[in-house]
Amino acid sequence: MSKVRAPADDALARIHDVVGAKGWIIDDAGMAPYVVDSRELYHGNCAAVVRPASREEVMGVIRLCAEARISVVPQGGNTGLVGGSVPPAEGGGIVLSLGRMNRIRDLDALNNTMTVEAGCILADLQTAAEDAGRLFPLSLGAEGSCMIGGNLSTNAGGVGVLRYGNARDLALGLEVVLPDGQLWDGLRGLRKDNTGYDLKHLFIGAEGTLGVITAAVLKLFPRPGAQETALVAVPRLGDVMGLLADARDASGDAVTAFELMPAIGIDLVLKHFPDMTAPMSGKTQWYVLIELSAGKIGASESEGALRLCLEGFLEKAFAAGTVSDAVIAASQAQASELWRFREILPESQTREGGSIKHDVSVPVSAIADFITQASQRVAVEMEGVRIFPFGHIGDGNIHFNLSQPPGMEKSDFLGHWRQFNRLVHDLAMEMGGSFSAEHGIGQLKRDELTHYRSGIELDLMRRIKQMLDPDGIMNPGKLL
Amino acid sequence: MSKVRAPADDALARIHDVVGAKGWIIDDAGMAPYVVDSRELYHGNCAAVVRPASREEVMGVIRLCAEARISVVPQGGNTGLVGGSVPPAEGGGIVLSLGRMNRIRDLDALNNTMTVEAGCILADLQTAAEDAGRLFPLSLGAEGSCMIGGNLSTNAGGVGVLRYGNARDLALGLEVVLPDGQLWDGLRGLRKDNTGYDLKHLFIGAEGTLGVITAAVLKLFPRPGAQETALVAVPRLGDVMGLLADARDASGDAVTAFELMPAIGIDLVLKHFPDMTAPMSGKTQWYVLIELSAGKIGASESEGALRLCLEGFLEKAFAAGTVSDAVIAASQAQASELWRFREILPESQTREGGSIKHDVSVPVSAIADFITQASQRVAVEMEGVRIFPFGHIGDGNIHFNLSQPPGMEKSDFLGHWRQFNRLVHDLAMEMGGSFSAEHGIGQLKRDELTHYRSGIELDLMRRIKQMLDPDGIMNPGKLL
Repeated sequence: MSKVRAPADDALARIHDVVGAKGWIIDDAGMAPYVVDSRELYHGNCAAVVRPASREEVMGVIRLCAEARISVVPQGGNTGLVGGSVPPAEGGGIVLSLGRMNRIRDLDALNNTMTVEAGCILADLQTAAEDAGRLFPLSLGAEGSCMIGGNLSTNAGGVGVLRYGNARDLALGLEVVLPDGQLWDGLRGLRKDNTGYDLKHLFIGAEGTLGVITAAVLKLFPRPGAQETALVAVPRLGDVMGLLADARDASGDAVTAFELMPAIGIDLVLKHFPDMTAPMSGKTQWYVLIELSAGKIGASESEGALRLCLEGFLEKAFAAGTVSDAVIAASQAQASELWRFREILPESQTREGGSIKHDVSVPVSAIADFITQASQRVAVEMEGVRIFPFGHIGDGNIHFNLSQPPGMEKSDFLGHWRQFNRLVHDLAMEMGGSFSAEHGIGQLKRDELTHYRSGIELDLMRRIKQMLDPDGIMNPGKLL
Repeated sequence: MSKVRAPADDALARIHDVVGAKGWIIDDAGMAPYVVDSRELYHGNCAAVVRPASREEVMGVIRLCAEARISVVPQGGNTGLVGGSVPPAEGGGIVLSLGRMNRIRDLDALNNTMTVEAGCILADLQTAAEDAGRLFPLSLGAEGSCMIGGNLSTNAGGVGVLRYGNARDLALGLEVVLPDGQLWDGLRGLRKDNTGYDLKHLFIGAEGTLGVITAAVLKLFPRPGAQETALVAVPRLGDVMGLLADARDASGDAVTAFELMPAIGIDLVLKHFPDMTAPMSGKTQWYVLIELSAGKIGASESEGALRLCLEGFLEKAFAAGTVSDAVIAASQAQASELWRFREILPESQTREGGSIKHDVSVPVSAIADFITQASQRVAVEMEGVRIFPFGHIGDGNIHFNLSQPPGMEKSDFLGHWRQFNRLVHDLAMEMGGSFSAEHGIGQLKRDELTHYRSGIELDLMRRIKQMLDPDGIMNPGKLL
């Protein structure tokens, strides 16, 4: 990274000439939103925010940066949770914001693909797919402002992974500007193409450290015709994953969401959102939000079959004692209401005070064990700490969050962040899991990467970085 | 590649010491099946066939080969169609056969994964999954003898790709012995893990040129409870892909196979397999085999719903005139009979005389255009050539095969192989397609790779090869 220099004025002037006034922000007020993350954990600096309008402009900018060894921080919606798109505190480089490259270049409904530029906002892509009678299934909290280039660079997860996969699985082709300013055009919309090394997977999830993703060919799917949503109460955590297996089995793998919520989560939602009403009368330790999706023709019959499938499998679960109560949404409005519990769960935790967060994954079969053991370990560490694990457990992904003990100072509690991180991450790794399931590495987890990954694995990653970006101009200080 | 040397006797002796007598074949008769491909297009030579029994033995062998710069050809079931696992004609290296590493190390039904060694035969893995109440969906003609290490190294396709993806999509983790003999243990069974560059996708599809895959964590799925199979007659090729879109839409994406067969294919099956009977009385230009799959609970109801869905969408197609006739299998036996047409289609072409083969893909929306235009071009090139396109068109993959004109000498016809290849591949590339959809590059299509891929793309691939295998000992002369 030492090879990167602070930009000389003439280099900046040449970059300005590539993008023009519309693509150039240099005043502090204008740059402010680009140099800090949404949680305000990271504050960076840069010489300019550069907003190219085309891949040619990206190529021109990167070529100049390569020549002058100016560092480049690619940025989409800047919604990441690990500081990956915030420039370094010492400044000296540019932020390359892709927001002006927001065209859908092509949508091919018969091929179930759309070719989109990096700056397209995720929600806009969902809408474009819907307008064409298709589904683009990537869905996550920040979808109203995050951009697809960032989604791909961080291999975003979200609520649709169980059925449709991560962002990585939704890209068929990529267009990338390499660290020397050359363009790799890999925008192929093919389901099968065995012609050499798979280059796109190098850039997906690389957090902008190997090049700039400027466009992608994304997979589309049929829209589900019928959908069933239920909230079920599960007294024993150990039964949760068997329930998922049964639901997938019973429905022909039509489970499109399987989200865990703890009793404390429901309680805090009801406490901090007075418009919400308790979903069921009794109280249980754990809740799972289940969504099944199916097709369109035979409308009422296939909807009936899906309902029958849900009811059948819940009856079995009631009989076995694994489920103690359940609410099946009778309408789309009721389904949305059930989903709202899941959606405002994180905010209810924030309103309750300090929270320490984890984004871990373990094998799906180990979820219950993990939560049980992790809960025991953190309880030993701090009396009164409140354990708030929730999330996409159908993917083995748990946001194992902790809320401060009532009465403790928030800052005191947050002072234990690293200590709890190490404890929770250690356990996840012991169980064959990961210390960053969907949020990535960025700045926040670089030390964890070095700590937990083998020397061989780190060496392979460093050799890849060295091969593609020998001068280290691409997003320095992130990931590796 | 010039750095690779012929092995000195003492180097061979040390390799022998690593694997022992059980892992050592050096006589010509014993080596014979390892140095030629199943179609006998490629005949190679080697100093020894080395059959390690463990990853430690693989590491030991590769370390010695790296030191002595002996070339290594990794080999699974040796069923590939492009000469990728056959050693070079000039000999001098070893064949590393993974067949003795055939343990299933772990099967975790709740996590829907199994951890398997490279030498496991694909059909055995399907059976192991079935025994655990799960589905391993990779399925292809050679499944009785091909090995999962080869499937992953070539990113195998087959008949399940439409619903379940290619081999690449079915691997969660890998174990790889690198070209210097070090082991990369990436055997993680996680659905979500965003911790740095994705290394496994470098080795999958690399055809053994970057290292030796010794084990993998594979994804399992619920077994389908209900299945419906139909053979439909489609008069106009242009209607075929709309039919697929409707079927996916109607069924909630439950289409698990969508295979095109031409009239000549049905005719030749009936001619060369006298036990087969015509599936329907009339005759149409094109046939599609459609399979829908769904879940288990609500047994009769969900089966009823699937049938209803199939019938509903076929009624619509009849009314629109896109389908002229259809046979819906009334039993598993009838379904198998319909599948048999598809399975023996390639053999019926072989029995008819010389055939020139293509394994191309195009965007799914371009399938009909591609077949129409390619047919016109080849007909202009040779009078009487018989056009025999079939295959996994749900994935945009067409085996656009040609049969010799009646009466022509087989060898005369086969003399036109390259000429037809260029013509068909040119068209596929013009339409944004690929000249090798599922078979890979191997020796057969190296020239095509250089011809069709951009300089930047080839350069990136060469830099990857150089980074991981600077001495070029891994499968030299293949892929790049």
